[in-house]
Amino acid sequence: KTYNIAAIPGDGIGVDITDAASEVLNTLASSHGGFSFKFTTFDWSSKAYLERGWYMPPDWEVQLKKHDAIYFGAVGWPDVPDHISLWSMILPIRNSMNQYVNVRPTRVLKGVTAPLSQIKANPKELDWIIIRENSEGEYAGQGGTTHAHGPNAIATEVAIFTRVGIERIMRFAFETAKSRPRRKLTMVTKSNAQRHGMVLWDKVFYEVAKEYEGVVEFDKMLVDAMTVRMVNKPESMDTIVATNLHADILSDLAAALAGSIGIAPSSNLDPTRSCPSMFEPIHGSAPDIAGEGIANPIGAFWSAAEMVRWVGQGSLDKTADQLMEAIENVSERGIRTRDMGGQASTKEVTDAVCKEIEAI
Amino acid sequence: KTYNIAAIPGDGIGVDITDAASEVLNTLASSHGGFSFKFTTFDWSSKAYLERGWYMPPDWEVQLKKHDAIYFGAVGWPDVPDHISLWSMILPIRNSMNQYVNVRPTRVLKGVTAPLSQIKANPKELDWIIIRENSEGEYAGQGGTTHAHGPNAIATEVAIFTRVGIERIMRFAFETAKSRPRRKLTMVTKSNAQRHGMVLWDKVFYEVAKEYEGVVEFDKMLVDAMTVRMVNKPESMDTIVATNLHADILSDLAAALAGSIGIAPSSNLDPTRSCPSMFEPIHGSAPDIAGEGIANPIGAFWSAAEMVRWVGQGSLDKTADQLMEAIENVSERGIRTRDMGGQASTKEVTDAVCKEIEAI
Ligand SMILES: CC(C)[C@H](C(=O)O)[C@@H](O)C(=O)O
Ligand SMILES: CC(C)[C@H](C(=O)O)[C@@H](O)C(=O)O
Repeated sequence: KTYNIAAIPGDGIGVDITDAASEVLNTLASSHGGFSFKFTTFDWSSKAYLERGWYMPPDWEVQLKKHDAIYFGAVGWPDVPDHISLWSMILPIRNSMNQYVNVRPTRVLKGVTAPLSQIKANPKELDWIIIRENSEGEYAGQGGTTHAHGPNAIATEVAIFTRVGIERIMRFAFETAKSRPRRKLTMVTKSNAQRHGMVLWDKVFYEVAKEYEGVVEFDKMLVDAMTVRMVNKPESMDTIVATNLHADILSDLAAALAGSIGIAPSSNLDPTRSCPSMFEPIHGSAPDIAGEGIANPIGAFWSAAEMVRWVGQGSLDKTADQLMEAIENVSERGIRTRDMGGQASTKEVTDAVCKEIEAI
Repeated sequence: KTYNIAAIPGDGIGVDITDAASEVLNTLASSHGGFSFKFTTFDWSSKAYLERGWYMPPDWEVQLKKHDAIYFGAVGWPDVPDHISLWSMILPIRNSMNQYVNVRPTRVLKGVTAPLSQIKANPKELDWIIIRENSEGEYAGQGGTTHAHGPNAIATEVAIFTRVGIERIMRFAFETAKSRPRRKLTMVTKSNAQRHGMVLWDKVFYEVAKEYEGVVEFDKMLVDAMTVRMVNKPESMDTIVATNLHADILSDLAAALAGSIGIAPSSNLDPTRSCPSMFEPIHGSAPDIAGEGIANPIGAFWSAAEMVRWVGQGSLDKTADQLMEAIENVSERGIRTRDMGGQASTKEVTDAVCKEIEAI
């Protein structure tokens, strides 16, 4: 079976790590047999935009829908305002492809001494999966500006929460929690200060929670206090569900606590499978180190593993596990890029992971 | 000179630490002479609300305005929905008393071994002052719910950003940065995903920044990436300015990284001095330990020191410094509550700080 992957390297280190990921995926397919990946690369990037005036062509939705999955590098470049680049690419894709769930696992990889002392003592204590609402909330894109050019300028950001949107993410989160050994879900909110949409968020959470009473243990945290708990009691949490913005913030913090933002994967899922899902490391385009060949490709590999698992629909779980094992082995052997205190280049880490894959 | 302080202990440990703070302030006044504090305590709390049906009386604004400052403990109690308690007390006070700046200093106190290894190596590396926009943004309170009871429920949270509101907070932040040795300001935003209000936020920041070119060094961070920088490069920042919600989240994280949420102070300031400003530790009412006499009073003392500085308008700076010195000495001697790995009670820490004040 051949899986058709739409690859969008995008900007900066997005290009480096997408190359690395496709190398690793090809190695995985050729050494395990029975399936292969066909990559179609789209040059949708800020660089292309600056040359030709657009990021994606008018038929981008039709083109993407022809694929089994989308692999995304990163978007964002100093010469283009971020709200232009992101609203021309990553955010419309998430929205139009019905990717209403964003899954962000974080744990401390083997051999990694995280900066946190209590995690140093027992790395297994930080093992989270963050379920991010990916289709509404603070990223709805609504709002506007009035009196833009005068002293009376006023602008709004309108966060939209719908019962349908909340219910489906809560259900996904509870199912995820249920599938993990600890069966624990922590819901994040800011319903003390935000008394409309966030109150609906809480309400629907408790309704869905009733269906899981006795099956999944659950609790509620305010987003500010949540950062404190992540630092002080990593072992007290397992699955976490949060809004689009809250989870965006918490997942970066999680990755930093686990060792580096460079290792963290994300899966933008359409659980209905009516559209292709999209896989991307959570880091950005990192203009400061772009093209130097030193970007950490681990987040990209981990995202690739999640993609393999997703497109396989159960048939490639062992293959995905093997990729994860290869990543862990390389991490354990201390072959690491600079962001993790190592000296290795992107290529060295990639080669090491490929070698591990062939050896497993 | 006598300063009239409106004390609102509120809920849970708010009561314990307000008592402790008034003891420390009285000790400070009596041992340093020339001024005193007259506390008027208001029993505006969730407990009172559950008994009589209201938090604050109709003339609360008039009553508060008779004071030189407001000292606030904490509000929030399990029997009252948080959005009711907070919108009945702390948030209306911040809004009506024109407290549009919230100042949140964080640093590692003497003798504290923070959980972060790089801070362990050099505690002086984490020394931040977070300037929080306190009057609009995500806490504007606007929004609503439609079709509340059916499957089509939709609710919004409307964040409001005005040029006036942004400009005054940016100016305050630049002035704060300018007054500190490192003269560095980091502005936090999420203008890549939020393209209306946050874009105005950025725009006004850069306009105000022009006035400080060559005087204050400044940079911009996305809120998600900011958490990573706080964990990994604490030494790279000094003054930080962020929106109401972003700064709420980041200041809790900052406190956790510095050792404990229990030490962190906050000043809700009306820089025009047309209304009394309000001082409160950033922690909440902590129902789980309320009344046990083990709450950390350091955040309350630090808040009290900031209050002394504010009401003194320059004349009490030395006194405020002495209170801070007493706090640091007690911290250095290892007299600490449980949240910081110690065994001391609230009373033991309070007594120790009072003794230090008398000795200085
Ligand atoms: C690039 C940006 C829009 C994006 C987000 O905020 O969602 C990124 O930070 C992420 O976490 O995927
Ligand atoms: C109690 C709550 C409304 C408050 C806030 O979110 O502002 C608190 O978390 C704080 O940081 O002062």
